[in-house]
Amino acid sequence: MPAAILSIGTELTRGELTNGNARWLGERLTELGFEVVEHATVADDAERIRATLLRLGQGTDVIVCTGGLGPTTDDLTAAAVAEALGVPVERDAASLAAIENRYKALARPMPAANAKQADLPRGATVLENAVGTAPGFVVSVGTARAFFMPGVPMEMQHIFETHVAPAIERLAPRTSHQIHIRTFGWPESVVAERLRDLDLGGSLHSPGVTLGYRVTFPEVEVKVLASAPLADNPADAARELATRVATDVRSRLSDVAYGGKHDTYPQYIGGLLRKVGWKLALAESCTGGLIGKLLTDPPGSSDYFLGSAVVYANTAKARMLGVPEALLRDHGAVSEEVARSMAENALRTSGAEIAVAVTGIAGPTGGSKHKPVGTVCFAVAQRNEPTRSRTELFPGDRERVRLRTAYSALRSVAEAVNHVPAKQF
Amino acid sequence: MPAAILSIGTELTRGELTNGNARWLGERLTELGFEVVEHATVADDAERIRATLLRLGQGTDVIVCTGGLGPTTDDLTAAAVAEALGVPVERDAASLAAIENRYKALARPMPAANAKQADLPRGATVLENAVGTAPGFVVSVGTARAFFMPGVPMEMQHIFETHVAPAIERLAPRTSHQIHIRTFGWPESVVAERLRDLDLGGSLHSPGVTLGYRVTFPEVEVKVLASAPLADNPADAARELATRVATDVRSRLSDVAYGGKHDTYPQYIGGLLRKVGWKLALAESCTGGLIGKLLTDPPGSSDYFLGSAVVYANTAKARMLGVPEALLRDHGAVSEEVARSMAENALRTSGAEIAVAVTGIAGPTGGSKHKPVGTVCFAVAQRNEPTRSRTELFPGDRERVRLRTAYSALRSVAEAVNHVPAKQF
Repeated sequence: MPAAILSIGTELTRGELTNGNARWLGERLTELGFEVVEHATVADDAERIRATLLRLGQGTDVIVCTGGLGPTTDDLTAAAVAEALGVPVERDAASLAAIENRYKALARPMPAANAKQADLPRGATVLENAVGTAPGFVVSVGTARAFFMPGVPMEMQHIFETHVAPAIERLAPRTSHQIHIRTFGWPESVVAERLRDLDLGGSLHSPGVTLGYRVTFPEVEVKVLASAPLADNPADAARELATRVATDVRSRLSDVAYGGKHDTYPQYIGGLLRKVGWKLALAESCTGGLIGKLLTDPPGSSDYFLGSAVVYANTAKARMLGVPEALLRDHGAVSEEVARSMAENALRTSGAEIAVAVTGIAGPTGGSKHKPVGTVCFAVAQRNEPTRSRTELFPGDRERVRLRTAYSALRSVAEAVNHVPAKQF
Repeated sequence: MPAAILSIGTELTRGELTNGNARWLGERLTELGFEVVEHATVADDAERIRATLLRLGQGTDVIVCTGGLGPTTDDLTAAAVAEALGVPVERDAASLAAIENRYKALARPMPAANAKQADLPRGATVLENAVGTAPGFVVSVGTARAFFMPGVPMEMQHIFETHVAPAIERLAPRTSHQIHIRTFGWPESVVAERLRDLDLGGSLHSPGVTLGYRVTFPEVEVKVLASAPLADNPADAARELATRVATDVRSRLSDVAYGGKHDTYPQYIGGLLRKVGWKLALAESCTGGLIGKLLTDPPGSSDYFLGSAVVYANTAKARMLGVPEALLRDHGAVSEEVARSMAENALRTSGAEIAVAVTGIAGPTGGSKHKPVGTVCFAVAQRNEPTRSRTELFPGDRERVRLRTAYSALRSVAEAVNHVPAKQF
């Protein structure tokens, strides 16, 4: 079932915006069982929109289009579609009423220009937009059903899930199933190595299973794609096959696999803390608050996160956290001794069950022969446990060093909760 | 001068990766004076690559292509180009030697598959790749020069800047000039309103000037695009025109305009602090460390940033920062009283010249009738100055509330440095 994605907007062709909509739609269409053969992105140019639409309508079953449905003069999609189909544009009374009602609900007058958003090609079926003013619509172009949606991601996603997915789902009989396994801790090459014989074996013993890898630094995601087009019940057979292989993958990656497609590592760590009923405190230097930020991205993090002493300057380490000045002087701010003192003081002042401290050199300057850029010292303090510390050397630029440091600090929490020994990562 | 971008890769059509290369190339081609008429993204499918290339070669002057130059069997670009041109693929001896040398330098044996990366369409001109194994190449297709580069962003950007930009620059006589003005503090509608008569007046008095807006939450960027194709010296005339209008734009937005295309707000704030020689400390609750993270993203931030007391839990506000428990009990954690105490304690313990505190309800839960989600209290403490505080109500989800809170806290620093009175934003 071939499908195509058409994105409309000069802000996209000029590179002022990244085309996140096309990625999102590509993923959703693939999940729904379509083969996405092309993404086309064209400027706000009626003739080019018209020609591209007619071209994509040859040989695809579904075209999903975004953009150009706004109220301004450079929003040309409806007119271009009408031109392609040889029909006039007509004002849709129901859509106009919906737009007017939307403004009424906001207690604002409707700008005259917005009436244009109710102008649709004759014969189009309206796709109601419950979260914005521009309605979507659907028409037939060549061999394809073509769905038009606004470019605002939230509105597009809403209309896709509400109207488009249900309409096209029945076109693509589900013959495959994909499971995502998110990992942190090993580089892609190590993850792939651990699965190599499974990958090969899978191809022999489980025809229709392929493993894919996607690196979203510092994480590696493994995708198990199972396909069973010839089974009696292809959807169930594919799901069963994917589930079986995914179980094997998870067991081989048990040290680093932490969740599925919609999980995040900080959420996973929060879940572990919640499970054991521990409160966490941090002491951050080179990360500058990043670890606390990551931990508090998900709501509800006050269940397990107390706070972080971000002591970026040396004077702050002494004044704000009580790290002895002699320690800073004798060992330097980037040392396991200072990291241990940071963690212990954070534990004591916060009253937490566990405290993690990081101090390092994120670069690009500040490195030395003995402590090059990328050197990071970690310490973990727990009540009634000896404080542990270690030093890592991370490659990459400032952003990578900081992100890897933050994830590694979170991993220390998982190790403490699970009593897993620390590993190089 | 019409140009097109062709991206090749099933990982793109399936939405496994966002097409950042197309955005980057769209921006660079626009800067170089080209009109980017289309981005096409196709799967690893030789026939589709061939057909798309021939289609884009009709009516464009430049095609820039990325992807499909790797060593594996699904890297089909060179073969598809050869097919499109009706020529054979031939192994390029110099490119093979370069690949072999690259492996030698890494002291690793060259995998046999990599030799394939030296297979190029007969007649192609090689574009040397100094940062990776796959060389690029250039051929003529229809009316266009078509440049092929690897999909790895770093390699692509390197080859583009080293080989492609110098080759195509002379094709597009520079007749326009664009200036970016970054702002934080007003919503897009207010920014546009302040420039409305200039925008209209510009169209009348300065033909060839258009203003554009781009929202990168919570910032608004204004783009002044001047075009002077009929001037004796179009490039200079366009630059002069853009500079004149940009000066006017900046003066109308002087409260909120802070920099140009490559500036960031945290860097701007850091620059202000550096100028007056102040050290900054923070006390963060609902932002969880985000403000410290933003301030320490740029290197060199230790010149002006001491640290942040991230006191997310109420107990942390008391224990880690010394906020009186009575204050927390009587006024609640989200109150100007607590914010003031946080700022004053951060100032005192850190020894900074200025301290900013934030405490608020980022949501989605935790709101009440009197303090709904989005309520954020700010306080600014300075030595020998009365502590100031204010309360804001920010719309949007947790992420937006946190980001707006962080930027508003940074804006407080600018106001203190510049003695600009606080405004609603």
